[in-house]
Amino acid sequence: MPESSKAVETAIDIENTLITDENPRFKKQIEFVLEVDKLKQVLRRTILIDRSRRENSAEHSWHIALMVFLFAEYSADTGIDLMHVIKMLIIHDLVEIDAGDTYCYDEAGRQDQVQREKIAAERIFGLLPDDQRRELRSLWDEFERKESPEAKFANALDRVQPFLHNYFTDGQTWQEYQINSRQVLDRMQPVKNAAPALWAYVNTLIGEAVERGILDK
Amino acid sequence: MPESSKAVETAIDIENTLITDENPRFKKQIEFVLEVDKLKQVLRRTILIDRSRRENSAEHSWHIALMVFLFAEYSADTGIDLMHVIKMLIIHDLVEIDAGDTYCYDEAGRQDQVQREKIAAERIFGLLPDDQRRELRSLWDEFERKESPEAKFANALDRVQPFLHNYFTDGQTWQEYQINSRQVLDRMQPVKNAAPALWAYVNTLIGEAVERGILDK
Repeated sequence: MPESSKAVETAIDIENTLITDENPRFKKQIEFVLEVDKLKQVLRRTILIDRSRRENSAEHSWHIALMVFLFAEYSADTGIDLMHVIKMLIIHDLVEIDAGDTYCYDEAGRQDQVQREKIAAERIFGLLPDDQRRELRSLWDEFERKESPEAKFANALDRVQPFLHNYFTDGQTWQEYQINSRQVLDRMQPVKNAAPALWAYVNTLIGEAVERGILDK
Repeated sequence: MPESSKAVETAIDIENTLITDENPRFKKQIEFVLEVDKLKQVLRRTILIDRSRRENSAEHSWHIALMVFLFAEYSADTGIDLMHVIKMLIIHDLVEIDAGDTYCYDEAGRQDQVQREKIAAERIFGLLPDDQRRELRSLWDEFERKESPEAKFANALDRVQPFLHNYFTDGQTWQEYQINSRQVLDRMQPVKNAAPALWAYVNTLIGEAVERGILDK
């Protein structure tokens, strides 16, 4: 079972504020801003580079948003809308507030992942005013479909960042969950066409990881 | 003294990868991506909404980047470049990797803050290839100067988010550090002109906080 932060109950007394009662749109926006704070409690399998602890999904989202403008030059499609990519990455994990982070190599957990995340998306984006709900939901759907050039590049970065963490922590997570190079290669497929230069790098590191004995062949 | 993550030593064997040795530009970018991971270890005084722990600067940066597109409609200047605002917010705290987070009401710590952060900016952005170093340094300088419409709006959100955390955790941090309403009002000044609607809301909440006894007058 993926972990969820649902058990963490917050003590928000938003009803107590005058101005938001008078302005339902603003009230919804504030409720959403407070709700998304819970993403900081969703732990991923990835560990930090200094190995001190597991990474949470909020700081992961920040990291890959930063990678967008660092690595934009490696996008196969040079005409992509980077703002669109960044927006997608900032909101791509919000569903985990309810659905938890599903480990990418957890076959059992992944079976009902789509369903769990759709229900989560309904509730979480549903906190927003209609126009913003539609906008964020549409961004999330686009990310999940992996079809638009922006979604492809966003997904590539979402794969590369934890890969770098795994490699530069001597494969600690790979070993803990007994992941092999074929599984990693499969997982990295979205990088291939979206960012060929990053794909070449990933391939080199996978080869070295096997050679160094930190990743099973 | 502000806290720093400098003591946390990472074990990165980046020299070991062939492809980066052949490509100094890419090597610098990868080193930067690994280095900024340390921002996840810089703790702020702000606590999470569920009060379970202090917030770190990476997840704070994510939160306010998300607030940009939620609250764009409250920007006094309706013509601002939102991508520029988001980029600024994503990188605005990177200097804290060396300089630590200086608590906004810590008068002693703030005296040498500018100098400490400038040295940090030199080192951290200096890890990047020249063009990207110039771009990110320029974004950070712009944020710090608080002069452009984009920098003003970015600074407003950077103030509003921790304020919401303080208010919706019943002023726990205000009380712990004996902060009064005058100090909070001063701190919130950048919101006034950049986002008048948010300023009105902040003012209401400050009044209520004093009335509820969670903030000293």
